Amino acid sequence: MREFSSDFRSEFFDLLKWRRDVRHFKTDPIPQDSLTECFEAFRLAPSVGLSEPWRIVHLSTDDVRAKAYANFKAQNDKALSGYSGDQAKKYADLKLAGMKEAPEQFAIFCDDSTTKGSGLGASTMNEARRYSVVSAIMSFWLIARAHSLGLGWVSILDPAQLCRDLDVPDDWTLVAYLCVGYPEEESLQPELEAKGWEDRSDVLQIIDR
Amino acid sequence: MREFSSDFRSEFFDLLKWRRDVRHFKTDPIPQDSLTECFEAFRLAPSVGLSEPWRIVHLSTDDVRAKAYANFKAQNDKALSGYSGDQAKKYADLKLAGMKEAPEQFAIFCDDSTTKGSGLGASTMNEARRYSVVSAIMSFWLIARAHSLGLGWVSILDPAQLCRDLDVPDDWTLVAYLCVGYPEEESLQPELEAKGWEDRSDVLQIIDR
Repeated sequence: MREFSSDFRSEFFDLLKWRRDVRHFKTDPIPQDSLTECFEAFRLAPSVGLSEPWRIVHLSTDDVRAKAYANFKAQNDKALSGYSGDQAKKYADLKLAGMKEAPEQFAIFCDDSTTKGSGLGASTMNEARRYSVVSAIMSFWLIARAHSLGLGWVSILDPAQLCRDLDVPDDWTLVAYLCVGYPEEESLQPELEAKGWEDRSDVLQIIDR
Repeated sequence: MREFSSDFRSEFFDLLKWRRDVRHFKTDPIPQDSLTECFEAFRLAPSVGLSEPWRIVHLSTDDVRAKAYANFKAQNDKALSGYSGDQAKKYADLKLAGMKEAPEQFAIFCDDSTTKGSGLGASTMNEARRYSVVSAIMSFWLIARAHSLGLGWVSILDPAQLCRDLDVPDDWTLVAYLCVGYPEEESLQPELEAKGWEDRSDVLQIIDR
């Protein structure tokens, strides 16, 4: 049995506090050893029925990265047109992707057709497979931050278009588009809060039933 | 800027390795301070547009817990009937919930109607809100393990029935049913692997595009 000290827990809380959804990246390359260690978090992540449904695509060419960026740009322009007045101005001022600068970019999919795990736990809630993929991404995010790496999770994308551009199997579902790199700066405050878009809550409500 | 040492990373990997999806709980109560600290992980979790869409329901009465257990039981019997031969025997031998013993149980929902975050990032992929909730659960899971607490994520449930039994608003989606308590035993091996249901992979494939 492995016990953890209160010192470790305190440092782990620092990790949670210093984790940001990063949009401003340095272009410096990431040492391969660091990346490999971060991806080990996927292998150790929980998955429903041990189905391990995560599928990881590394965007390794300028061509596929340009297509992904164009996808983001089109969807971001569309999203901007849905806001008006002060909110539209605020939205336009936000930087919502770091896809031009982040040295490494990955599209993370869920293979909804996997037979691994023989469907255990996924018949009542088949979304559990996609939630397993998110659990892996969150573990990756935290270990990346412990390597001083920032992660930016971009969800302003047309998933169907990205699937076509990356030529992935039909039964894969896009879960996340991740930019990874060293951040330009560090902060304890989420950028959306610093820029006045939305505040983080001070309290967490738990409802009794 | 907060940097983390290789010693911390090594200990964090131990945390990932010793995290299990627990089904065998002691009935010992959990100190309120520990639980409160674990839930702080929700407040620090990432959420799309800072929407913080997580809604936490504590099952505090025998009545609601009995309903949740009956829900699991019905769905588990149904799942068992979908397997045959050796696999049915194996499935029947698995313990897939710890709902009779776990001292604390929570149903975690996503509020898909929240206006917090003004829809940022959730129009192209509205599932991003539910993924935010999963990110929070994963952070909670890890800090709970650092408190020597086990967590069991039960997905063999009829979500609609649970929503009715807990009388939650119509636009809340069930993301997870969590059992929390001190585990009967600790292991580096997932129970589904130990029981011969499925193996964990030794390698992680990354596909280049």
